Amino acid sequence: METLECIRSRRSIRKFKADEIDDETLLSLLESAIQAPSAGNTQEWHFFIIREQASKQKLAEAAMGQGFLVEAPVVIVVAADLEEIGRAYGERGRTLYAIQDTAAAIQNLLLAAWDRGLGACWVGAFSEKAVSDLLALPSNLRRVALIPCGRPAGMPRKPEREGLEGRVHWEHW
Amino acid sequence: METLECIRSRRSIRKFKADEIDDETLLSLLESAIQAPSAGNTQEWHFFIIREQASKQKLAEAAMGQGFLVEAPVVIVVAADLEEIGRAYGERGRTLYAIQDTAAAIQNLLLAAWDRGLGACWVGAFSEKAVSDLLALPSNLRRVALIPCGRPAGMPRKPEREGLEGRVHWEHW
Repeated sequence: METLECIRSRRSIRKFKADEIDDETLLSLLESAIQAPSAGNTQEWHFFIIREQASKQKLAEAAMGQGFLVEAPVVIVVAADLEEIGRAYGERGRTLYAIQDTAAAIQNLLLAAWDRGLGACWVGAFSEKAVSDLLALPSNLRRVALIPCGRPAGMPRKPEREGLEGRVHWEHW
Repeated sequence: METLECIRSRRSIRKFKADEIDDETLLSLLESAIQAPSAGNTQEWHFFIIREQASKQKLAEAAMGQGFLVEAPVVIVVAADLEEIGRAYGERGRTLYAIQDTAAAIQNLLLAAWDRGLGACWVGAFSEKAVSDLLALPSNLRRVALIPCGRPAGMPRKPEREGLEGRVHWEHW
């Protein structure tokens, strides 16, 4: 798919067909994710592939009951290594760059999935502690997003964008 | 350009030709930026188009002397409205979603620019106070990135990616 068409047409998918996504496809999506830029090329991202039903159930509970996390054939949990980015960039690295770098990688992932006919949804509302407990994460890994992913069951309307009016400014406020 | 090729081939550009970028082109890049998802579709992003030489000079100073900010024909300053996102999502909105939503928009912007033969660079190291003073920003707008943009003068090597080894985990740590 053409880049601009992919960016324009992509939407968040919360209903999935039962079809599995094979490892090769998943890894190709993650190869696109890690093409994102990162501060000083630190690449402090980590990705957890979750397919086990019991684990997806716990992720849904951690995400205040968002049940589509269970229906997705796979959920990718994205985390940032705060120790790694903090070594080079201190507090700004831990609180800004870590979040930006992983977010850029996630956006690449969403676009690459869409390009392949897959759907996904960026879930940010969840208990970081519950996800950390589930994945047995070391304390330096901050959980920044849950990305359920699968073949879309239906095509929802894209939430309307306000447009650029009032959001673009020339030279100053 | 095909989406995956755009994601794969894009790199950070820090040397620019003098060619101007017209308003129409810039606005089309920002139209791609705002196709990004945002928490609850809040769309709390703001974009400042900076072309004036004296302003670019001040941005470079705010960014610890990164001189390529002056050479770029345009610098886009990206900000997030913390009050807007905070109303719906409180502290998590201000410290996580605001940064993720603008980062996703920036990644779209970088890809859309690359697709059109333009180059850009995500600059995160700068004094937020100095940029705020320059743009006369209200205190609710956090400055999250400077994006110099222009026609690339030469094609630098892409910093190598470590690959997925040690970054992808199956079911748990």
